[in-house]
Amino acid sequence: MNYWWVNHKQTYKHEVLGGYIWSPKTKANGQANESYLTLTRVQPGDVVISYADGQIKALGVATGAFREEGKPESFGAAGDVWATAGWLVPVEWELLRQPLRPKDHLAEIAPLLPTKHSPIRKETGDGNQGCYLAAISSELGKLLQRLIAPSDSAALEVLARQTTQASEDAQEAAIVASGGNPTEVEQLVRARRGQGRFRINVLAVEKRCRLTGVELEPFLVASHIKPWAASSDAERLDGSNGLMLAPHVDLLFDHGWISFADDGSVLVANSEAAAMLAIWALPGDSFVPIPFTMKQQGYLAFHREHVFRKGFVL
Amino acid sequence: MNYWWVNHKQTYKHEVLGGYIWSPKTKANGQANESYLTLTRVQPGDVVISYADGQIKALGVATGAFREEGKPESFGAAGDVWATAGWLVPVEWELLRQPLRPKDHLAEIAPLLPTKHSPIRKETGDGNQGCYLAAISSELGKLLQRLIAPSDSAALEVLARQTTQASEDAQEAAIVASGGNPTEVEQLVRARRGQGRFRINVLAVEKRCRLTGVELEPFLVASHIKPWAASSDAERLDGSNGLMLAPHVDLLFDHGWISFADDGSVLVANSEAAAMLAIWALPGDSFVPIPFTMKQQGYLAFHREHVFRKGFVL
Repeated sequence: MNYWWVNHKQTYKHEVLGGYIWSPKTKANGQANESYLTLTRVQPGDVVISYADGQIKALGVATGAFREEGKPESFGAAGDVWATAGWLVPVEWELLRQPLRPKDHLAEIAPLLPTKHSPIRKETGDGNQGCYLAAISSELGKLLQRLIAPSDSAALEVLARQTTQASEDAQEAAIVASGGNPTEVEQLVRARRGQGRFRINVLAVEKRCRLTGVELEPFLVASHIKPWAASSDAERLDGSNGLMLAPHVDLLFDHGWISFADDGSVLVANSEAAAMLAIWALPGDSFVPIPFTMKQQGYLAFHREHVFRKGFVL
Repeated sequence: MNYWWVNHKQTYKHEVLGGYIWSPKTKANGQANESYLTLTRVQPGDVVISYADGQIKALGVATGAFREEGKPESFGAAGDVWATAGWLVPVEWELLRQPLRPKDHLAEIAPLLPTKHSPIRKETGDGNQGCYLAAISSELGKLLQRLIAPSDSAALEVLARQTTQASEDAQEAAIVASGGNPTEVEQLVRARRGQGRFRINVLAVEKRCRLTGVELEPFLVASHIKPWAASSDAERLDGSNGLMLAPHVDLLFDHGWISFADDGSVLVANSEAAAMLAIWALPGDSFVPIPFTMKQQGYLAFHREHVFRKGFVL
């Protein structure tokens, strides 16, 4: 996953409301421009940081690769300086509740800025006029997220979910394009939604929701312990790699707000997760921890280490 | 949506465990066979009734159209009589907890059997040797479901969910193939998952889960009131056509186990739905009915009439 920084200037609203970033292919005089070419390197699942008027006001996730697209009509006069032929990358934007002003944190940010094609100036923190889109390091991307976290961690949570989704979409497309056995391809794709052979396999191992005790199948979700995206094809269909959970328990488990110890007791990530459990009256009165099998414990170890957000500040 | 009846004979296990129906293209002597040609007419979302050994033991939903596929190797000697070149339709099977014996209900079934190419004999109720796959009327399809309901209504519920899913898949594929404006296409597809522009539009109208009071966005699902599949493109993105709900409330609402009156009070479909609300402690202690806007009321009227399962026997 890569991080990109876009300097929107006058087209900020159009691009964020429209759900994309767009650049002409060349300068108006026909010359190539590094920062325009950069747009063609963005991949689905990459994070895009939106900067305009001296502020980072939105974060986004690319939901597709670039495609050829003429200059958006909505730009109007603001786009007069640009050539008409261009490229567009679709982006799912999340507006920040409170913008971040990079100038206020220049001491931390400056050392991580790229030496060539930097989106803002190391010395002043002002936007770099010639730069529309720049690749930034994951260190800088993560620093910016840490700076945003105290005022809007919910946006980061949405961003994380969209990144996962985009990466799963890309993996699913790769499976479909693989030309493999059609039945196998179909079952792998259905497993992502907790359906088909995976669901049948899980039901053979787990019959009810561990937190609410529900055993009526129509009210249960087949949830991967080791996430679908991180699993091998065999693991994606393995019944021991799944739990039958009520939908709200599935969300808490899938996003790492809760996990399980090998003896079946519930682990809670932080105080917000504890508050959600309380609001949703979880675990239910009938809850009794039930130890996991050895095979389940293998997958659970992965969940505790890579999915569970122990101490995460929401 | 169409109903089909398949006589599996020796290949029952292979086809049900494999997740498909398969037939040769022609008889071994090269002659056409009406019941083989029938397989090419099955559409995604159609219901397939599986009959073997005098019993209906599984119901399925076609998840794709037919494709060319050689005779499955797993048939072994049982398939020796058939030509190798064939067609396959992928089917998501649901095994019944208790098989249904059509012979036991022949008085009701016989009048609804097709006059030509009937899968079982009107007079005796025995399987018709020459018939692999037969089209049956929706009256017969629904009668068979009514006969199955008392012993296994959960399977019917899963079937209904899979039918919806397959129909949505087909509509999504049609949108993608439409060649429309890529941004619009993407937003329509994302709306199905409660994401993108639809989610943003809903959040402008509804800020919290009406039943649990949760307002932390990462724990909420943007749920269509009038289902995505039944909505026009404009309705699919309309914020007034959505509610922000906790995931378990979303499942209950989406599948019609609960609905809302215009004044915001909760309607409960049946005793099973009431039991689920009790198990999940819904509505939460903080629940207060909040009247819907006029636009929301329009969508809710559709939900109460076409989605809400008032009196449905699970």
